[in-house]
Amino acid sequence: MPILVVGSVAFDALQTPFGKVDRCIGGSATYFSVAASFFTEVALVAVVGDDFSEADASIFEGRNIDVSGLQRIPGEKTFFWSGEYGYDLNVAKTRDTQLNVFANFKPELSDSQRNADVLFLANIQPELQLDVLHQQEKRPRIVALDTMNLWIDIKRDALERVFREVDLIIINEAEVRQFTKEANLIKGARSILALGPQTLVIKRGEYGVLMVTKDAVFAAPAYPLENVFDPTGAGDTFAGGFLGYLGSRSELTDRELRRAIIFGSVLASFTVEKFSLDRLREITLRDVYERYQDFRTLTHFDDHEA
Amino acid sequence: MPILVVGSVAFDALQTPFGKVDRCIGGSATYFSVAASFFTEVALVAVVGDDFSEADASIFEGRNIDVSGLQRIPGEKTFFWSGEYGYDLNVAKTRDTQLNVFANFKPELSDSQRNADVLFLANIQPELQLDVLHQQEKRPRIVALDTMNLWIDIKRDALERVFREVDLIIINEAEVRQFTKEANLIKGARSILALGPQTLVIKRGEYGVLMVTKDAVFAAPAYPLENVFDPTGAGDTFAGGFLGYLGSRSELTDRELRRAIIFGSVLASFTVEKFSLDRLREITLRDVYERYQDFRTLTHFDDHEA
Repeated sequence: MPILVVGSVAFDALQTPFGKVDRCIGGSATYFSVAASFFTEVALVAVVGDDFSEADASIFEGRNIDVSGLQRIPGEKTFFWSGEYGYDLNVAKTRDTQLNVFANFKPELSDSQRNADVLFLANIQPELQLDVLHQQEKRPRIVALDTMNLWIDIKRDALERVFREVDLIIINEAEVRQFTKEANLIKGARSILALGPQTLVIKRGEYGVLMVTKDAVFAAPAYPLENVFDPTGAGDTFAGGFLGYLGSRSELTDRELRRAIIFGSVLASFTVEKFSLDRLREITLRDVYERYQDFRTLTHFDDHEA
Repeated sequence: MPILVVGSVAFDALQTPFGKVDRCIGGSATYFSVAASFFTEVALVAVVGDDFSEADASIFEGRNIDVSGLQRIPGEKTFFWSGEYGYDLNVAKTRDTQLNVFANFKPELSDSQRNADVLFLANIQPELQLDVLHQQEKRPRIVALDTMNLWIDIKRDALERVFREVDLIIINEAEVRQFTKEANLIKGARSILALGPQTLVIKRGEYGVLMVTKDAVFAAPAYPLENVFDPTGAGDTFAGGFLGYLGSRSELTDRELRRAIIFGSVLASFTVEKFSLDRLREITLRDVYERYQDFRTLTHFDDHEA
């Protein structure tokens, strides 16, 4: 099994300066799976209530996504998040969070799920991330995680334990500073790498991504869109494109990591163009490749003449 | 005369989390001239008081900087700025501004100064920028300006008049949004370009630079430094490296503009490593070329395989 993702499938209510939707599909594992499935096979482990219909589940159809790990709990409701953005689309204001089925989420992996090639621990509580990792029969080739400010606030020790066991951390800029209490981002990154991971991928919203490894730093801008509609899911989409691409490659070199960062950025740039996964549903791998080339044009400069 | 810069030469008092200095050389035209002089000849037009000693003026010596336009007013004092930075080095807090000689700065250009090849109107009030431009005998090959939030607040109409007459605007991200009242940066950039300039160079502090022209967008990250000591002068140094390089080239192509952005970013990355121009004083063109290559390593990614 190439990529296993454990995270949330949710309903979102969203309001941005450009529109409003009362109920649409969201959740970290949803965005991740759809994005990663452009490159490789994905297995999803998540939980929903019986309000999650077949029509809702159609988001996963016709893609390389194994939904046998999507558990449906009768008589209960799906995780619900309501958020609002002002003109500064970098900052979401949470209006409501109803954990519902997600409150008791404690996945028991199947035999095949215990043999992931790449494991992505989406933003869930750190003990659960660790539990999922420890259910693996052998060490996956790549173990990556995302997290959030809440866990740094209330579960810092557990989070540090997971950090020590993963290969790759995908994290926001502000979270690096919060976790390390270090204003300088590069110093902060180095102190997280010192815990064990080989690669830190720092998300900077509209400013793109900074990847820090022991040997190199790689900076990628975000794609400069004239119409950013809804930033929800951009980070999870990025992670999906990034790990989906890596999952499809045999080597984990600096060269492939950089390509993966660009593919993640490309996918995320589509997600923000419409509400929910509406834009991701429309695009093809050809659109992805085209925008990859646009990223080359966006960032390329020639060597100087002496 | 290749590049004429009109702006301030000042004394600064600076405090950052890493140190404190009560009096050092500063001023937009100072940073600009020294940075530009790595690439081409610069003529400086500015005013100081008689507290500005020969030792102070030594910053310009041994470089391609013509200081015949640096007027010294007897019995008066040099422009003084005192600023403070917290751990968020993106935001300076002004503690004191004493305009002194700068309050009555109204340059009369000499014959040679009226024939600039490249004209840089550093951050001074827009009417003065326009006056300097109109003193030119023939249109310079490149006219560029910098500005600040103050002029958008209190001299918006005059500023818009200057915008309409220049080729190239170097401006902060927040100032684009303030001037255009547009949250989306690319839309804001396009509305400024619609006034006439061919090129907008948007400074984003630690996130680098976005260049927007009618045909292209180019994104360059800032150099990720582990030790940023004092950000004062980074923007003016950037402008100096950028226009200094362009001034040394015969063509104003997209290719050369991109290289110029990187050279500007390289010079700025040195400035912030020490107080004042202390680091710029130490480096050679060879250091500049080396860091240019580091920028290639920082941003390069390969085309993907199909």
